[in-house]
Amino acid sequence: MAANTKPVLHGYFRSSCSWRVRIAFALKGIEYDQVTVNLIKDGGQQEFQSVNPMQQVPAVEIDGITLCQSLAVIQYVDETRPGAKLLPADPKKRAQVRMISDLIASGIQPLQNLYVIQKIGADKVQWSQHFIDRGFKALEPILKQTAGKYCVGDEISMADICLVPQVYNAERFKVNMDQYPTIKRLNQTLLEIEAFKVSHPSNQPDTPADMSA
Amino acid sequence: MAANTKPVLHGYFRSSCSWRVRIAFALKGIEYDQVTVNLIKDGGQQEFQSVNPMQQVPAVEIDGITLCQSLAVIQYVDETRPGAKLLPADPKKRAQVRMISDLIASGIQPLQNLYVIQKIGADKVQWSQHFIDRGFKALEPILKQTAGKYCVGDEISMADICLVPQVYNAERFKVNMDQYPTIKRLNQTLLEIEAFKVSHPSNQPDTPADMSA
Repeated sequence: MAANTKPVLHGYFRSSCSWRVRIAFALKGIEYDQVTVNLIKDGGQQEFQSVNPMQQVPAVEIDGITLCQSLAVIQYVDETRPGAKLLPADPKKRAQVRMISDLIASGIQPLQNLYVIQKIGADKVQWSQHFIDRGFKALEPILKQTAGKYCVGDEISMADICLVPQVYNAERFKVNMDQYPTIKRLNQTLLEIEAFKVSHPSNQPDTPADMSA
Repeated sequence: MAANTKPVLHGYFRSSCSWRVRIAFALKGIEYDQVTVNLIKDGGQQEFQSVNPMQQVPAVEIDGITLCQSLAVIQYVDETRPGAKLLPADPKKRAQVRMISDLIASGIQPLQNLYVIQKIGADKVQWSQHFIDRGFKALEPILKQTAGKYCVGDEISMADICLVPQVYNAERFKVNMDQYPTIKRLNQTLLEIEAFKVSHPSNQPDTPADMSA
């Protein structure tokens, strides 16, 4: 695949990790093709096995390689494509962006994803609330220190790309967001931005008709 | 804190994420002080709350800021300190290093950590085996494509730093490593390297006497 071929995103409208990649592509102005994958549907897992043996979305075919793991994809396009920078130039700010991103990507999201909840057989809402609350209780004081208009200072970064889909999940699981005024304020600001709107789960090719905006 | 003050690592001998940071510091030749944190012990959590509200090790005080999340710490020292580079210069290889690191850091480790297992009340060994096997089944074919002498080509990287502590956990939970010949081979090669030896859980200030090497 030539470097100038459009990347192909294998994703799912409601997957928060797929949404991260869609936001990044929108912020950088990267055109891409979407292949929608329904991992819950019968047969969805088998079909997708060859693309990502981890059987998780997103997976992105880009520049002749297949990348899984949303943060690896986001940093790859940031390092190889022009446009808005998704990581700040200052090393301390970069570290804070990565800390916030990883707190969400390693500390919250894996514990409230559908596969895990099904495996546990726990109450979906109660379990997810517990782990989102645990993470947001840690995130709120960090963001109080790092945030300006956005998560780290006044430039949109990978941290913001991780925050908004996680808040979307929190709202699905009825987490009381009034406990987290900084997170809530940042999320509201970010949702006004075009790249976050066009990439929203309610606006995707595989969004069911009754959920479309 | 001045930039030339030694960093302080708040960690725990057996925490695989703390071990990642110890390996990185050793590979880069960074001297540091260790504060040992026992999150299981009564009171350990309260004492540590002010350092990391997420109540997870590691946390690192460095250059006047406190960083949590091991991969953020590793990339910060890589970007600000001389010595061996922990991420390759080539963007595709960097992306593969991050993909492998995140597959472990987001896709495996969070699901087999002690807090989560206690919360589930599941059988510790069975649960951990399930999630480590799921991750290693995805990691093995990826490494078959990317590995040379080490995880990505012939240079040690952040991917190797993540791999060895995860294999250590796999062995604790009696995962059959013969299923993963590439992972097993890489782990054996890496364990011969001085930076992986000095940072090993069996050689830390808080290692119990009956576990010391």
